[in-house]
Amino acid sequence: LIDTTTILPEVSLKASGHVDHFTDILVTCTKCKESFRGDHLIEAVTHEEAEGLTTAEVDAKIVELKIRCPKCKGELGPSRPFNMMFPVGVGPLGKDRAYLRPETAQGAFLNFKREFEALRRRLPLGLAIVGRAYRNEISPRQGVYRMRELLQAALQIFFDPATFGAQLPIDSVRDERLRVAMAGEKHEPIATDRTTSDLIRGGIPGFYVYHMALVQRFYLDRLRVPRERFRFAELDERERAFYNKVHFDIQVRQDSLGGFREVGGVHYRTDHDLSGHAKASGKDLSVPVADRKVVPHVLELSFGVDRNVWALLDLGYELAGERAVLHLPPALAPVDVGVFPLLSKAGLPERSEALYRDLRPGFDAFYDETGSIGKRYARMDEIGTPFCVTVDHTTLEDGTVTLRDRDTSGQVRVPGTSVAAILHDLIDARRDFRSIGSAVARP
Amino acid sequence: LIDTTTILPEVSLKASGHVDHFTDILVTCTKCKESFRGDHLIEAVTHEEAEGLTTAEVDAKIVELKIRCPKCKGELGPSRPFNMMFPVGVGPLGKDRAYLRPETAQGAFLNFKREFEALRRRLPLGLAIVGRAYRNEISPRQGVYRMRELLQAALQIFFDPATFGAQLPIDSVRDERLRVAMAGEKHEPIATDRTTSDLIRGGIPGFYVYHMALVQRFYLDRLRVPRERFRFAELDERERAFYNKVHFDIQVRQDSLGGFREVGGVHYRTDHDLSGHAKASGKDLSVPVADRKVVPHVLELSFGVDRNVWALLDLGYELAGERAVLHLPPALAPVDVGVFPLLSKAGLPERSEALYRDLRPGFDAFYDETGSIGKRYARMDEIGTPFCVTVDHTTLEDGTVTLRDRDTSGQVRVPGTSVAAILHDLIDARRDFRSIGSAVARP
Repeated sequence: LIDTTTILPEVSLKASGHVDHFTDILVTCTKCKESFRGDHLIEAVTHEEAEGLTTAEVDAKIVELKIRCPKCKGELGPSRPFNMMFPVGVGPLGKDRAYLRPETAQGAFLNFKREFEALRRRLPLGLAIVGRAYRNEISPRQGVYRMRELLQAALQIFFDPATFGAQLPIDSVRDERLRVAMAGEKHEPIATDRTTSDLIRGGIPGFYVYHMALVQRFYLDRLRVPRERFRFAELDERERAFYNKVHFDIQVRQDSLGGFREVGGVHYRTDHDLSGHAKASGKDLSVPVADRKVVPHVLELSFGVDRNVWALLDLGYELAGERAVLHLPPALAPVDVGVFPLLSKAGLPERSEALYRDLRPGFDAFYDETGSIGKRYARMDEIGTPFCVTVDHTTLEDGTVTLRDRDTSGQVRVPGTSVAAILHDLIDARRDFRSIGSAVARP
Repeated sequence: LIDTTTILPEVSLKASGHVDHFTDILVTCTKCKESFRGDHLIEAVTHEEAEGLTTAEVDAKIVELKIRCPKCKGELGPSRPFNMMFPVGVGPLGKDRAYLRPETAQGAFLNFKREFEALRRRLPLGLAIVGRAYRNEISPRQGVYRMRELLQAALQIFFDPATFGAQLPIDSVRDERLRVAMAGEKHEPIATDRTTSDLIRGGIPGFYVYHMALVQRFYLDRLRVPRERFRFAELDERERAFYNKVHFDIQVRQDSLGGFREVGGVHYRTDHDLSGHAKASGKDLSVPVADRKVVPHVLELSFGVDRNVWALLDLGYELAGERAVLHLPPALAPVDVGVFPLLSKAGLPERSEALYRDLRPGFDAFYDETGSIGKRYARMDEIGTPFCVTVDHTTLEDGTVTLRDRDTSGQVRVPGTSVAAILHDLIDARRDFRSIGSAVARP
């Protein structure tokens, strides 16, 4: 996991291409001076994606569709490119020009030589990066979906393009079916099952398809996104980021956002960044591989953390009458287990607290004895806690406790001493709740 | 743990006092236009701290001491206050004025009402915050010690000043001896042992002294800073931050920085922030406590993460001939244990990898079979890994392995099945290395 500065000097962002290409098209009203994104103005009328149009095309569309200012109905001025980075003046006179980083990736590229040394001079080399990125969005909207300050998580894989495919166990995903919408299909809310072999035959590099398969497994198996709500959406040449040669968005269909929406991306950046920095700095960024010198290529798996959290809330939040339940995958819930005495007397709190202390090193456990047991369960359901353990009078007699499942409200009776092992199995999805202990009739 | 935005609107930083008071005194050369911090110019000549001087006092000192530009010997211009926040223009026209946050704390204050609700409406209320803070330092220097972008960790404790003392187990630290330099003493590299009772009798609030004792325990027992290298340094009225009523710096004496240097602070901010935000926003930030309404006071334990990491490197790094050893406290080392086969043949790698897989869920373990065993130990010593386990031919016969201690290079022979339990005890400092297993003669 690497962590680099969020303020970057202009020269490095010039080299990466962001000063020239990290732009949106801005249209300003001649009357009220409000500004809008050109593609959004057009999309609002046509209901079709307009990303990737040039300023001339946007101007032509505005005339053709007779679009006027959405705010005051005034006449719109000519469109112009608008750089989305936040400038920052560094030093007492602000004379050193810098920007808040538009993506976490550049820090990894600028430090590549050090990382290569520290990780013992081998390719492929993988780095995990989590941190803030900043975009001066013209129109932030839809809650966390389009923000000026966002949390990015990325895996940057530096590799030798001549050998990477052969280094990967691509056979292990042979003919796995991926949910894909190619560039021409993705304006419909659909996805087609395509095998990895089909995609490779269609011209997508094997190493790329292999990582698509791993990403899909992560979303379906770990995040438990229903299969029909997941897809990869291909971006065509006009739409994809300026640094990418192959670019599929990772999308999750969310009711709150009206359809499939981007939560991440698989980016084949080639040697765009390292070669750009090498050229601008005059520092050779190639590394020795056997008897050759190679400027590594980069495959980037990039995720918007806020967007993914939102997607999990969208998929998992259920409001049934008075009962609110957040069906988070157990492995992702902030609290693993609630520990309660049935009553706050007769030795039950002491026994519960002892159990809580036993569980605490291995689990995010939460002890609570206030309010009725029903209210305590409801609080846990609401924040997505998958399991609760309750100590009652029977516990004092035979050492058993009740274990409650958030998703079914079912309860079983199990020995207090086996709770930790059972929780590990349930959270890692090695066992199903119904296979555990004897069911308890609910009052 | 809460996480809030790093860009804050000007109105909130006006309310907190940072727009008006978060300033250094700037002096610019009339000839070469280079800028300097006024207090640093004076300190360079007098070798005494000059923080807290007014612009008039700085100008008088410059005349009195005949200070000229350190760069070109030109005449220095008049001093002026310089705000250390980075301005950020938000939106397409940059018309919404904002700043990068100068401290992580303000986000916690701005969200106080929500936090109070989420944490079930009780005082005291404690929040842990980790994140970036930004300061447009006139003269960044000394590596990580004074940076424009830094990582802050803070505990913000919101409390009712009428009852906080009685809520704390202050008796548990009664007469504990703290290492303190009062405002008048701290220009000397000394500290005096003062009991908690003495400090309380001297007028420092009991709740404040209680937290000083906990901070000192953390540094001496957890971070294993030698007692004589730790002290609290009191700041007088001129020196302390504008929001503080009581302010002691937490200092560690570091050879690389030439003496005691600040790594954190204990700040009694009173209701300065919440009252400031309430006044500016017109929103009542008081909360009900029994039958009263209280604007909570805040005690802030604040730590510069980069500075503390630097201090641990300064204290722990030993270069003895060719051997580099980083004596990090085992609980803080990035890698807990190295796992090695003595030779990369004869079944030893397989056995080592099995042990590595067993240890992996509970420890940050690192498997290595390249190079000589001596080189592998040296690599681990260099990055501070406290323990290494080696599988050899005897392992295949009787299941025992050697366990090596970084600090002494001592080795003992222990059963492979007990390695996990032994490592837990060693890392948590429950057992001493010499008490474990039978010593092995080193080759």
